[in-house]
Amino acid sequence: ALAAPALAQTAMPEVRWRLTSSFPRTLDVLFSTPELIARRVATLTDNKFRISVFPAGEIVGGLQALDAVQAGTLEAAHTASYYYVGKEPGFAFFTAMPFGLNTRQMTAWLRHGGGRELQDTFFNEYNIKAIPAGDTGAQMGGWFRNEVRSLADLNGLKFRIAGFAGQVFQRLGAAPTQVAAADIYPSLERGTLDAVEFVGPHDDERLGFVRVARNYYAPGFWEPGARLHFMANQRAWDALPDLYKAAIEVACAEADSEMVSKYDHLNPLALRRLVAAGAQLRFWPREILQAAWRESNALYEETASKNPRFKAIWDSYKPYRTDQYQWFRVAENSFDNFAFAAAAQQ
Amino acid sequence: ALAAPALAQTAMPEVRWRLTSSFPRTLDVLFSTPELIARRVATLTDNKFRISVFPAGEIVGGLQALDAVQAGTLEAAHTASYYYVGKEPGFAFFTAMPFGLNTRQMTAWLRHGGGRELQDTFFNEYNIKAIPAGDTGAQMGGWFRNEVRSLADLNGLKFRIAGFAGQVFQRLGAAPTQVAAADIYPSLERGTLDAVEFVGPHDDERLGFVRVARNYYAPGFWEPGARLHFMANQRAWDALPDLYKAAIEVACAEADSEMVSKYDHLNPLALRRLVAAGAQLRFWPREILQAAWRESNALYEETASKNPRFKAIWDSYKPYRTDQYQWFRVAENSFDNFAFAAAAQQ
Repeated sequence: ALAAPALAQTAMPEVRWRLTSSFPRTLDVLFSTPELIARRVATLTDNKFRISVFPAGEIVGGLQALDAVQAGTLEAAHTASYYYVGKEPGFAFFTAMPFGLNTRQMTAWLRHGGGRELQDTFFNEYNIKAIPAGDTGAQMGGWFRNEVRSLADLNGLKFRIAGFAGQVFQRLGAAPTQVAAADIYPSLERGTLDAVEFVGPHDDERLGFVRVARNYYAPGFWEPGARLHFMANQRAWDALPDLYKAAIEVACAEADSEMVSKYDHLNPLALRRLVAAGAQLRFWPREILQAAWRESNALYEETASKNPRFKAIWDSYKPYRTDQYQWFRVAENSFDNFAFAAAAQQ
Repeated sequence: ALAAPALAQTAMPEVRWRLTSSFPRTLDVLFSTPELIARRVATLTDNKFRISVFPAGEIVGGLQALDAVQAGTLEAAHTASYYYVGKEPGFAFFTAMPFGLNTRQMTAWLRHGGGRELQDTFFNEYNIKAIPAGDTGAQMGGWFRNEVRSLADLNGLKFRIAGFAGQVFQRLGAAPTQVAAADIYPSLERGTLDAVEFVGPHDDERLGFVRVARNYYAPGFWEPGARLHFMANQRAWDALPDLYKAAIEVACAEADSEMVSKYDHLNPLALRRLVAAGAQLRFWPREILQAAWRESNALYEETASKNPRFKAIWDSYKPYRTDQYQWFRVAENSFDNFAFAAAAQQ
């Protein structure tokens, strides 16, 4: 017989937080990520720490998430750091950079390559504790009304794309445009927009772009992965018991890989349906990739020369990217290249 | 002023488990994975649930981990399912298959593609609760005393390689050999072995193979990722409070991505040192990859025709691989191919 274990009593205070997502419920993989975190945290704290998750727009707008958390209007948000590049360009590093680190490389940089420390220093200025929580994997390059055969075809192209990616396309001659979410579909239909990019097959299918722009380009070279973050107001974070902080951290680590695994599972199924619905899968002409690679790197160097906070991160990110790219070519990429092609020939 | 939160008292029983790793302390990324799980579980249970982690050989041998957990000699182990293919071939699916799913694809299959349910059914026969907990990423193809220029060069080659990978190499004409861990290095030095494979640059460097076999091949097409598992005795698992089960599950999910991110961080640094120490980085001749692809698939079909438990898993794994390979070519692989090459040309 086993001796009955000694019972210890652990004090768990009741805590209630409100979290805004930057996404609507319809983007289910994105929206379910903070829900997963909230469920895990509740289980790990015997339901004493409850986080209520609200879709974008219900309390604050999707792009006001950071401001609301900074001000303490809400305790937390699930959002993309790069939505806030208008405040300062360094925000881009923590989500996605054109020709930046891919999903696994980004995790390695954030956890072991110095990224986490840079992220903590960066967000400290905003009174925010930021924890990586989800990734999209490499994204698609978006939906184009007309085929893009050369660099010249980008000239004046009205493309809904923001941030650094928008700046890169501007340098390539395109006309990056900001259009509110609700207006994207009608703008594309009317031709006020020539092209739009969002995430990948699963989300893009829900937004219905295939019906008005059939040329679906790969890859989304400006998002070789896009990391989402759980962001907490620093004062609210500091007030948590250690066990609750640990519960959030470990739940975010779980959600971090869970989100991309959902996309990896769902995207092949969605892509097949999209192709059946008339999507023309196309790959970027090489001259566009080459020009975009050149302009992206030039843009980073220019930005670093003007912005010391950006430079501090770029000085870590840039050599890390070199090392990661070099290593991933050896085992991962050489496997993928052979095996994926062999399977396609069967 | 804020109202003081109500305090709830949660009963947490004292629980002590012993866990054996299948690895020695010197293989630090592998060995530290269950240590990370144990630390997280302790934090999440206010130190009431303590798991002591022992290296291979201290309580039971590395390859006896599953037997010990099945029998209840120990409550838990951190090991590789495919070490036990001698019991039945289905064990291979949960770690790595030649030309199988890569790391992200494997996570998607296990979490969303039906893999978890198949895994649970499979391990139930062994009285074991198995939870994915760590991955190596795509491995290297090992160290060869002589260059391998063609399929003919594999003829009679004494290669230390086990399981399905060993069977594939046997079909290619090689002589797969089982050599105890301690004898690998001297066997390679004496020429009793012509070649050996282990994991990748970080671990391989610690084992010192570069000093006696300089040709370092990529990729390890038989391990496009290798998943490790936390395995618990089913009766010990069932006796845990729900909160402790949740603590193990979430800690394993964290460790699952943490292990590969450590490898991703460390491998580029180790590869550079190995090349400086004289390693000749080489890629498999195409005819070897093609023959291995053919023989791997033939072997799976033959095994499935003889073994219904293997077949039940293969019937899920095979079409999942087709879908994943097809999708990953589109965004991930097309990004990686361009960007990695562009960076190398700078």
